[in-house]
Amino acid sequence: MSFDHTIADISLHEAGRHQIRLAEHEMPGLMALREEYGEAQPLKGARIAGSLHMTVQTAVLIETLTALGAEVRWASCNIFSTQDEAAAAVVVGPNGTPEDPQGVPVFAWKNETLAEYWWTASQIFAWPGVDQDPAQGANMILDDGGDATMLVHKGAEFEAAGAVPQPQPEDPEEYGYVLETLRKSLGENPQRWTGIAENLRGVTEETTTGVTRLYQLARDGQLLFPAINVNDSVTKSKFDNKYGIRHSLPDGIMRATDVLLGGKVVVVCGYGDVGKGAAEALRGQGARVIVTEIDPINALQAAMDGYQVATLDEAVEQGDIFITTTGGKDIISASAMTQMKNKAIVGNVGHFDNEIDMAGLAQLPGVKKVEIKPQVHEWVFDETTGRSIIVLSEGRLLNLGNATGHPSFVMSSSFANQVIAQIELFEKSALVHQGEDPYENEVYVLPKVLDEKVARLHLDAVGAKLTELTKEQADYLGVDVAGPYKPEHYRY
Amino acid sequence: MSFDHTIADISLHEAGRHQIRLAEHEMPGLMALREEYGEAQPLKGARIAGSLHMTVQTAVLIETLTALGAEVRWASCNIFSTQDEAAAAVVVGPNGTPEDPQGVPVFAWKNETLAEYWWTASQIFAWPGVDQDPAQGANMILDDGGDATMLVHKGAEFEAAGAVPQPQPEDPEEYGYVLETLRKSLGENPQRWTGIAENLRGVTEETTTGVTRLYQLARDGQLLFPAINVNDSVTKSKFDNKYGIRHSLPDGIMRATDVLLGGKVVVVCGYGDVGKGAAEALRGQGARVIVTEIDPINALQAAMDGYQVATLDEAVEQGDIFITTTGGKDIISASAMTQMKNKAIVGNVGHFDNEIDMAGLAQLPGVKKVEIKPQVHEWVFDETTGRSIIVLSEGRLLNLGNATGHPSFVMSSSFANQVIAQIELFEKSALVHQGEDPYENEVYVLPKVLDEKVARLHLDAVGAKLTELTKEQADYLGVDVAGPYKPEHYRY
Amino acid sequence: MSFDHTIADISLHEAGRHQIRLAEHEMPGLMALREEYGEAQPLKGARIAGSLHMTVQTAVLIETLTALGAEVRWASCNIFSTQDEAAAAVVVGPNGTPEDPQGVPVFAWKNETLAEYWWTASQIFAWPGVDQDPAQGANMILDDGGDATMLVHKGAEFEAAGAVPQPQPEDPEEYGYVLETLRKSLGENPQRWTGIAENLRGVTEETTTGVTRLYQLARDGQLLFPAINVNDSVTKSKFDNKYGIRHSLPDGIMRATDVLLGGKVVVVCGYGDVGKGAAEALRGQGARVIVTEIDPINALQAAMDGYQVATLDEAVEQGDIFITTTGGKDIISASAMTQMKNKAIVGNVGHFDNEIDMAGLAQLPGVKKVEIKPQVHEWVFDETTGRSIIVLSEGRLLNLGNATGHPSFVMSSSFANQVIAQIELFEKSALVHQGEDPYENEVYVLPKVLDEKVARLHLDAVGAKLTELTKEQADYLGVDVAGPYKPEHYRY
Amino acid sequence: MSFDHTIADISLHEAGRHQIRLAEHEMPGLMALREEYGEAQPLKGARIAGSLHMTVQTAVLIETLTALGAEVRWASCNIFSTQDEAAAAVVVGPNGTPEDPQGVPVFAWKNETLAEYWWTASQIFAWPGVDQDPAQGANMILDDGGDATMLVHKGAEFEAAGAVPQPQPEDPEEYGYVLETLRKSLGENPQRWTGIAENLRGVTEETTTGVTRLYQLARDGQLLFPAINVNDSVTKSKFDNKYGIRHSLPDGIMRATDVLLGGKVVVVCGYGDVGKGAAEALRGQGARVIVTEIDPINALQAAMDGYQVATLDEAVEQGDIFITTTGGKDIISASAMTQMKNKAIVGNVGHFDNEIDMAGLAQLPGVKKVEIKPQVHEWVFDETTGRSIIVLSEGRLLNLGNATGHPSFVMSSSFANQVIAQIELFEKSALVHQGEDPYENEVYVLPKVLDEKVARLHLDAVGAKLTELTKEQADYLGVDVAGPYKPEHYRY
Repeated sequence: MSFDHTIADISLHEAGRHQIRLAEHEMPGLMALREEYGEAQPLKGARIAGSLHMTVQTAVLIETLTALGAEVRWASCNIFSTQDEAAAAVVVGPNGTPEDPQGVPVFAWKNETLAEYWWTASQIFAWPGVDQDPAQGANMILDDGGDATMLVHKGAEFEAAGAVPQPQPEDPEEYGYVLETLRKSLGENPQRWTGIAENLRGVTEETTTGVTRLYQLARDGQLLFPAINVNDSVTKSKFDNKYGIRHSLPDGIMRATDVLLGGKVVVVCGYGDVGKGAAEALRGQGARVIVTEIDPINALQAAMDGYQVATLDEAVEQGDIFITTTGGKDIISASAMTQMKNKAIVGNVGHFDNEIDMAGLAQLPGVKKVEIKPQVHEWVFDETTGRSIIVLSEGRLLNLGNATGHPSFVMSSSFANQVIAQIELFEKSALVHQGEDPYENEVYVLPKVLDEKVARLHLDAVGAKLTELTKEQADYLGVDVAGPYKPEHYRY
Repeated sequence: MSFDHTIADISLHEAGRHQIRLAEHEMPGLMALREEYGEAQPLKGARIAGSLHMTVQTAVLIETLTALGAEVRWASCNIFSTQDEAAAAVVVGPNGTPEDPQGVPVFAWKNETLAEYWWTASQIFAWPGVDQDPAQGANMILDDGGDATMLVHKGAEFEAAGAVPQPQPEDPEEYGYVLETLRKSLGENPQRWTGIAENLRGVTEETTTGVTRLYQLARDGQLLFPAINVNDSVTKSKFDNKYGIRHSLPDGIMRATDVLLGGKVVVVCGYGDVGKGAAEALRGQGARVIVTEIDPINALQAAMDGYQVATLDEAVEQGDIFITTTGGKDIISASAMTQMKNKAIVGNVGHFDNEIDMAGLAQLPGVKKVEIKPQVHEWVFDETTGRSIIVLSEGRLLNLGNATGHPSFVMSSSFANQVIAQIELFEKSALVHQGEDPYENEVYVLPKVLDEKVARLHLDAVGAKLTELTKEQADYLGVDVAGPYKPEHYRY
Repeated sequence: MSFDHTIADISLHEAGRHQIRLAEHEMPGLMALREEYGEAQPLKGARIAGSLHMTVQTAVLIETLTALGAEVRWASCNIFSTQDEAAAAVVVGPNGTPEDPQGVPVFAWKNETLAEYWWTASQIFAWPGVDQDPAQGANMILDDGGDATMLVHKGAEFEAAGAVPQPQPEDPEEYGYVLETLRKSLGENPQRWTGIAENLRGVTEETTTGVTRLYQLARDGQLLFPAINVNDSVTKSKFDNKYGIRHSLPDGIMRATDVLLGGKVVVVCGYGDVGKGAAEALRGQGARVIVTEIDPINALQAAMDGYQVATLDEAVEQGDIFITTTGGKDIISASAMTQMKNKAIVGNVGHFDNEIDMAGLAQLPGVKKVEIKPQVHEWVFDETTGRSIIVLSEGRLLNLGNATGHPSFVMSSSFANQVIAQIELFEKSALVHQGEDPYENEVYVLPKVLDEKVARLHLDAVGAKLTELTKEQADYLGVDVAGPYKPEHYRY
Repeated sequence: MSFDHTIADISLHEAGRHQIRLAEHEMPGLMALREEYGEAQPLKGARIAGSLHMTVQTAVLIETLTALGAEVRWASCNIFSTQDEAAAAVVVGPNGTPEDPQGVPVFAWKNETLAEYWWTASQIFAWPGVDQDPAQGANMILDDGGDATMLVHKGAEFEAAGAVPQPQPEDPEEYGYVLETLRKSLGENPQRWTGIAENLRGVTEETTTGVTRLYQLARDGQLLFPAINVNDSVTKSKFDNKYGIRHSLPDGIMRATDVLLGGKVVVVCGYGDVGKGAAEALRGQGARVIVTEIDPINALQAAMDGYQVATLDEAVEQGDIFITTTGGKDIISASAMTQMKNKAIVGNVGHFDNEIDMAGLAQLPGVKKVEIKPQVHEWVFDETTGRSIIVLSEGRLLNLGNATGHPSFVMSSSFANQVIAQIELFEKSALVHQGEDPYENEVYVLPKVLDEKVARLHLDAVGAKLTELTKEQADYLGVDVAGPYKPEHYRY
């Protein structure tokens, strides 16, 4: 096949294009960037290796990057999350056909194996000619979770060592596939990743996990290129977490259970941005929310917002529904689950599935798991009495598992940060290669004025009219008419 | 087949029983009635002909009726609304098997034809031996929409006339099937419906449409048996309409479109109970609601509740989403739809599908209907620009078409009214046949104290503890300690 | 004195006129009636005896009545509630001077004695020449609480009996003053009240108390003229109770205590319209509301609205603030008050001061009452520990005692009902005297279409634009284009 | 006079003590600090010069400082804000009498002249013996607005220069009094302020204005001692601004105007923390809020929270009430005020009175200012038509001018930050004088763990129960069990 991609079924492309068209309408930030930069082509010359859930929204992101001049190769950052019709549509492109695809090489399909996953991850760096001349390879990474970045760093590290180590017993299973992938690569080209790393101008990363890895690399002096932390833009963290969850949490519970939320007692564990969005959504449905918190400041905010703040011990027998939002672990123990009301519903919108002790639940003596429908399971404690609880999405993120994750508008905000960060890094890092160095091999957040720009791009869509400062007013406040308007520590 | 029923596929019964078990937990009103009356068997001797959507919730209703002693035969009141697994589970019963069903005869399956529908309606009156002895037939009707009641009245009318008329050009198509059914019956037994009518002690009816028909019959002196209007119980109308829609409206929009509700401008047409629930739900999601109203009192309520009140003309270009809740017709005209923003979403949670002028929309020159997915259609006004709107559920009730209708808890309240009304009418109407006449052939609402009882049955489930009046306090207020507590005109 | 009135200090009239001018802006219903009927003068010939709190808002009411052609004499219906500057301004009138008053005779001042009070009540019937010719006297009563109506009925009763009885030991103290007033009258003119009663075309009454008395008189066949129950207009009861309290409850607590409402636990006793308004206001301030209820329907509404429903026993140790809204008695007992948290705040917005057992509180052994400021008292249970609670307005209505009662806009709605009822009764009762009898000596509520009219008059002021039904839509709904739009039992 | 203080009327002390007692109950943070540190006396040896509004809440602060061992001298930081009864009570102390005061020297009374004000400011540094030995003087400043800090810096600067300059034409009038005060001092003791400055261990400052001055001094290398910026503690800025305003804004409008907030259109200028609190309060009263914003991020937040975002130009004719919350200037111009609806209400809860162009308003041709009552003025544009607007508190902070400012609970949070910062600086700066230097002459914010401590101290009072991390959970999150729990950039 002359065209370089692998997806499950390219015939899905028409269904994908319908959905992309509707999603474009809900992603005004990305569409505004196409409008603003379409002519200037600021990403002309950029070759972006992208690793991010291959969904309809990501399709709009990819086509925004190409509209700004970039060449792109794409893989998903999760073995389950690809929407095949979106992948197909991106490969074919708006004007192509399955026979003559004119889109972007995509290496992603729903339900990959781990071996396949790491193969796709390596493919986004396999630009034509890169083995002959690394300067023909990717010069930018767009990352979600840090897998693409990690692959380059590990590849270069092992090439420097001249060998790929064997997996150790304490390594997670998945790491074996990483090593296998790199071992194969080392055989093929012992300087491949070294060359790739040298030609990368930087990475933009949008998750807490990925950002944490980047800060560790930078702290240890091992970061091989500059990084922009998109995760901590206000227009990413505050919007994605709070307003995204406010929508997708009730959506997930409703689809999963059809249980009336009005009049229910819901225990929300955590009152960070995710918890704030969750509590607001549930109160808006007439539920009574009890919050648990470990941080006294957030706890006091919850109380001031009118919620009861209690420990899980106190609330465990009152709750009809329990939602974790913390990013911590063992928030709801197996023992707590046994104390809940019959048919209590338990779900997670925090981070990993260890917020709920699913392993402990499965090990309870006599417990029986009954599938009500996919992603909705009844865990029966006692078959005689029928006493049981309902667990959503096996303890993983229920807004993804029982609904469809964050709506497009929220992703538009996150992805506009990605695009702007790509432009910023591609343009400025270019200067590094010309002997100037606005960005070193460190981790940066987007300048506040660009964060404000992302917000600005979404105002029209919600009918918001912005007031403009006069020069005199701006001087009085000590800010520029064009922003940024707030000190760095401002909390919004 | 010795067992008297007809459903599509009885093998679904296990899936249905799972769902019934979970629904029972969310229908505390019905379960409390089983608890309270299980021993006394107040419906012993009742033979109930039921016509109501054959869903999982209705299964819990049916099994409550039988738990109270009734015999039951059932049909759906809508050709689309049957959940086949619920029907199967009811037929088999909790202790039966497909080979040895021990449940209730059900005549209902998803997607009936109109001919089949009216056949099922007649089957709920076809009790064994009824043609020989009408006193062996149904003595109660439980109705939703009035079709069962209408069939009896028309049947008796034509038997009195000795002939069934031909359908007239102005009759709705469906009426032809009614006439056909009765014509066949007249051939079989020229006194069938007359006998059935004479043995019916009454009907309980839960819809506005059905109740309106009953009041017309009563006004014209043609009502053949007493009727209880369950629709206007507070615990039906206020709860079903307001709290049911508050849940099922956002559920439906989210499932249909995945569009972020936060920040959207939503035009809600009507601020009755349905509109109040709709507006509350949307505000709870961070949408900005604009209300349209024809009634100045409701309009003033909307304003006092903080909503902008405008005409559709004023709001048509601002709205991102339009929801009708009125029970009226032509609320959103085709012309209005052409003036909406590109990709505006239009849906109905009012009553009939004529709230939105779907016919007018389809007749617009050049308009094209694209199915995005079932029950979600894009109507493209102009293929060049791609200008279009999205219509949910073809203009019919989107909370049914795009979600799963009212949650079980809400139906528990409505159905507890049905059961209590059945007991009331069956017990008291018995007296009529003994020469006393607490109920004449008129339409009654449930006594307030029974309405209060329905509420009372649901308090435990939401953790509400009721305060009891002392005798002295009750005397001061001029009420009985046990209620009722409010004058008839009290508005809640 | 040639001009017939008695107020404390007419020199206050300028301050009063300022306030009246501002209040007019907030009473669009009354101003719209002046606009609509100013020319037609429908109250021309009406001589209205008014008994209603002589406040700034009442001043706007009085001047609306005169603008529509009526002659008016006024007294307050409460010995404390007169705002002297409002009384002065009404007496002087917009164009008069203290030397040449051109307004309305007002018999009211702040802090009347009971003897003075009943003298003022009799003065509103002392029209010039009435003793010579009763037809020159009042022909309409506008009443609040029923004192004016009661005076006429008792006067006529005693005149028929030929004697005024002595007060009995079980009579309230105040009744002695009524008897004294009538005894004096009997001496002056033994047919005075009989003549007055015969010439009265009717009364309009706006309180629950007054309405209850009227229904009792009608039931006993003793009502001497028709009555319109303004209290049960939707635009009175629902608006006054819910939206009035939503404003004036937090206003009162804030003025009284300056205590932050955010984060507080507030126990609201009762979830009728007053309780609904109270709960909404407190939640809007970030308080956590616990509701107590005796009526299961209202209790279920509270739960569905997201409030915890508990008994006072359960909540008494959790609450920071306790508010009664019930109209019942002994809602908060002295014993409950001793169990509250130190410095808990207790207040009443229900009806009479016996909702809180103030007498029992005062009789607790060792209790000490400390005035923090007028209408705010600390009741110290134990001087050693300083344990105490705060009681607002001595247990009487705190929104009146600690704030200024309902805002003008709310009163505009109530008073527009009064004016419309006066017109209705004056115009239609005139027909009675012409031998027709649209109104008998019964109690009526305003026709729904007039209730709707009151709402209509307030829409402009809140910027609400009403949608008009087409003839076709109205026919479909079975209503008139001009209303009324709802069945009588509709609950809003 | 042997006792060193000056207040208006010491006989008010009993009234003050009542209020202090009630305020203590609402200031749990300060009371908890007394409990925690009363025995350890961490401020033993601290001599604190305090400059902060001499209110009842400040009295609780002062007595907390002394309970922790400090000696204190106090002045107000505003000529109008002293509550004389609070000042009297503090001077007398809980156990003293007017004849034998045992409290704290206070130099403050309501309505000081500017000359008096700067005299009181100098008196808080006039510790007995300080002129002889500066080490006997103040060693700490607790400041609000920076006047005390400025006096020391200017004093030392002029002493170094050997002369106090003459005021320049461009200087504000008030600066003349500062110079006069320092000129007199220079005559008395030419090294007074130099000595004082050398002995000061630091200042804690709680306002934006004061903090800005401190950062300027530090940037210019002129800061003479370390400073802690209490203003930017989360428990100060987020709580004071948002929850304080949520309470005191409706309080102020209600007391000033008695106008129903329900159904009104309120334009809130600015959606920072103050604007967020304002909008929430008004929506909670049933008002419809329109937000104006210059910052696109805040604007998008407002839209996501369901508010209309418009420019003032668009909204000026719709608003019934206009509230500025920005900290900027000329937010509402005189020209805008002329375009408002008749009787629109205009008020400020932002910062300075120049948010509303009061000067421009006064200069409008023909405009007339009518006092309705103190702090409430009608500005009549046209006497013929009566067209006018209402301005609250002359454009200054209406929550202070028309109500009583922030409630005690909010101040407890701000003041607990002050006390903790005093302890931190006094204890640690002591080390500086011992040759260690944890704090340099820079501006610091409180460590996050102390910010969390302030929150922790308030949880009991609102009934919030905090969850404690296990060691394992804390390790997983990479935090300490005892906190701090969040990264510095966390936005709450």
